Amino acid sequence: MAKKLKKYVYILENPVYLVATSTIVGKKEGAGPISKYFDMVAGDDTFGQKSYEKAERRMMEEAIFSCISNAGKDENDVDLIIGGDLLNQLVTSSYSARKFNIPFLGVYAACSTMSESYAVGSMMLETGAFSNVICVTSSHFSSSERQFRSPLELGAQRQTYSQWTVTGSGCGMLSKSGKGPKITKVCFGKVTDYGVKDIANMGAAMAPAAYSTLTTFLEETNTTPEDYDLIVTGDLGKLGSDILRDLMKKYGAPLGKNYTDCGHMIFSSEQKTFQGGSGAGCSASVFNSYIYDKLKNGKLKKVVFMATGALMSTTTNQQGDSIPAISHLVLFEA
Amino acid sequence: MAKKLKKYVYILENPVYLVATSTIVGKKEGAGPISKYFDMVAGDDTFGQKSYEKAERRMMEEAIFSCISNAGKDENDVDLIIGGDLLNQLVTSSYSARKFNIPFLGVYAACSTMSESYAVGSMMLETGAFSNVICVTSSHFSSSERQFRSPLELGAQRQTYSQWTVTGSGCGMLSKSGKGPKITKVCFGKVTDYGVKDIANMGAAMAPAAYSTLTTFLEETNTTPEDYDLIVTGDLGKLGSDILRDLMKKYGAPLGKNYTDCGHMIFSSEQKTFQGGSGAGCSASVFNSYIYDKLKNGKLKKVVFMATGALMSTTTNQQGDSIPAISHLVLFEA
Repeated sequence: MAKKLKKYVYILENPVYLVATSTIVGKKEGAGPISKYFDMVAGDDTFGQKSYEKAERRMMEEAIFSCISNAGKDENDVDLIIGGDLLNQLVTSSYSARKFNIPFLGVYAACSTMSESYAVGSMMLETGAFSNVICVTSSHFSSSERQFRSPLELGAQRQTYSQWTVTGSGCGMLSKSGKGPKITKVCFGKVTDYGVKDIANMGAAMAPAAYSTLTTFLEETNTTPEDYDLIVTGDLGKLGSDILRDLMKKYGAPLGKNYTDCGHMIFSSEQKTFQGGSGAGCSASVFNSYIYDKLKNGKLKKVVFMATGALMSTTTNQQGDSIPAISHLVLFEA
Repeated sequence: MAKKLKKYVYILENPVYLVATSTIVGKKEGAGPISKYFDMVAGDDTFGQKSYEKAERRMMEEAIFSCISNAGKDENDVDLIIGGDLLNQLVTSSYSARKFNIPFLGVYAACSTMSESYAVGSMMLETGAFSNVICVTSSHFSSSERQFRSPLELGAQRQTYSQWTVTGSGCGMLSKSGKGPKITKVCFGKVTDYGVKDIANMGAAMAPAAYSTLTTFLEETNTTPEDYDLIVTGDLGKLGSDILRDLMKKYGAPLGKNYTDCGHMIFSSEQKTFQGGSGAGCSASVFNSYIYDKLKNGKLKKVVFMATGALMSTTTNQQGDSIPAISHLVLFEA
């Protein structure tokens, strides 16, 4: 059973444990500062496949397989796979799910899909009818670039305020019993749109969504940013994080050293990604490796995880629409 | 609270009422046999917009607005919008959701999205924390054709075994109290793939998914097709429905006169759609109008609603992949 706090924040009353995770990333991500926390690093971004789309799929399949195995379970124990990705029609997730004899639920919130997936998965467990639910997302630099921007072969110059789509997949298993950090509160995001139209500037488009969800959460829970060991957004990158800091300062709840961003953490400045990482696989691989590790060993006790997603398509962009964004929030406690 | 029956079927223990619906369709759909059951029929498929994508969005916004109003509520009463559509990155749903001050959850199961949305929505209510949830999907013939096949201007000839993407949006409000048919059981589908590669032949790709979910449901509930007033698939069309009938006959549970398909119902044979309607808006507009009406006035008492979705993209098709499919099932009782 769950309970509504006031209007937008849900308190989970049945325990929901994140009992295991698995992460797999590409070569560039594996050369970054949190490299040692990933379960697997690819030697080459094709993962032995003939296309980048098939490579991304291979990566997600592997993440699901090894997450189930890390949890000491087999596929027969899993009630549901909840997953999504950036490719049109969520093909990475759907095609990966056909490898498993497990019901599948496709979800989409762009780069906020990992927290959407955890939010939906935890609600399934709150019904009392589910035991183990897999939550998974991915992105791949090369499949994303050619779908959303331009083929790599074109050699298009990147804007200095752009981010680098992470090649990575992260997977977690939520269970009604076991060991691990618990999800204790959930806040579903609203779609916000401040009129940003530049698809290279995802950070600026998404920061207002993070602001909307975070302020809603703090107000309803009557807490301040200092009450949490870590507040981590998905992939605002450096510029987007700075915008969020500015907005929160004006709001009267400035973010301190306990705020960071997955896109900011995954690459070092020497890796020339400009504003940092992005993509549904960014928060998925950073949260389910580095942050999960710190939650498991008690170094972090209360973590607000709020991945952020920009909800445009190439068609809406070509038709002159602005970029709506969303951020779903999940509170993890050690 | 929900309860697992054996392995894949969930029994809802808290009541989940479908208290109101709204449907809006295009001109061709409005000239079909169930025309009088739709809430609104457009005079012209552009809905006064500059592009078909914006027209689809306008249609969904209108469906949501009028569903909330048909329920006698305002947006302040709604906890969550759960929606999805066929356009890349679910832009119809995301852009429509930004018009409402309501949290949004994007879901995707291609043309099975309406039953996925109802399945997820009913689980949210089972947690005990939600009061009113909006479930919505749409599709538009012209935005779909140019995204998935070819621009209308090309005048490409259609295969005789193809279907016609419905221009329509259907919306329903699930509530923990009120009047209306109840959702009593849910079965999430698995991704099935029998190797069909022809994207004009959606019925053949999707029939095995319907077969998988329906046989799972009948086995677990220990029932036969005769135990239901109506079993209705989403958009298998005529050919796909015939394949499902063949499969069920071989399985030993032949489908009788109480089986039909939304794609089969929405157009008459004079309308030259070949195998009938398809698209996420097909089952959404047929279920939430005609079938909802029969459930409300008690002419139908037990309806198995299982929309069916083909999960490919143009990229997977171009790369030679086969078409995986899925079918989520929801049981409505008057």
